[in-house]
Amino acid sequence: MAMSKFAKTPKPPYYAVIFTTVKSENQEGYAEMNAKMFELAQQQQGYIGIESAKGEIGISVTYWETLEDIARWRNHAEHKLAQQKGYETWYQAFATRVCLVERDNIFERERSESTL
Amino acid sequence: MAMSKFAKTPKPPYYAVIFTTVKSENQEGYAEMNAKMFELAQQQQGYIGIESAKGEIGISVTYWETLEDIARWRNHAEHKLAQQKGYETWYQAFATRVCLVERDNIFERERSESTL
Repeated sequence: MAMSKFAKTPKPPYYAVIFTTVKSENQEGYAEMNAKMFELAQQQQGYIGIESAKGEIGISVTYWETLEDIARWRNHAEHKLAQQKGYETWYQAFATRVCLVERDNIFERERSESTL
Repeated sequence: MAMSKFAKTPKPPYYAVIFTTVKSENQEGYAEMNAKMFELAQQQQGYIGIESAKGEIGISVTYWETLEDIARWRNHAEHKLAQQKGYETWYQAFATRVCLVERDNIFERERSESTL
């Protein structure tokens, strides 16, 4: 179902971390670390979900219950190593934005209306 | 320069609208409308910038100065027509999330450190 590609977020308010990236030329070890962090994030307290897309830039949005949950994940030992590697090697540029989601509007077409 | 791919956002607080989409099979007229809305959005009061990426889902984040600016753009006559067409035709599913950006951290590698 289409919606399974979206994060299943609760009624607002909740938090979003928008992580925007431009990769560098050296991507050695990135894919493995990214997969590991994807798994690890899901095990953290207050983690809700993730939405990702890649083009000229990459955008990953993770959703969290509270600011404390975000801080705990930011300071997680393994995640800090990954952040350091991203900073030193994998990213030409990145932006992290911590946001309070105040309102949302989510739509999914009925299966019967679709040819998918 | 890498950062030109990112939105040039001010010191927080400011607002973000995270627009996540799954396309339907019928994309007739979408590209033209998308280009038109991209141009039109930039002319709106309080518009700051946009970051977009497309994969299995599409994610576009637009940044705005105030909630009133976001409401004005949401209710803009031409934009409302585009939204209606998206709802009826172009999108299998979408999510719009209006967020207050409370904190950000933006990094760009020095050109001299890079081979780009």
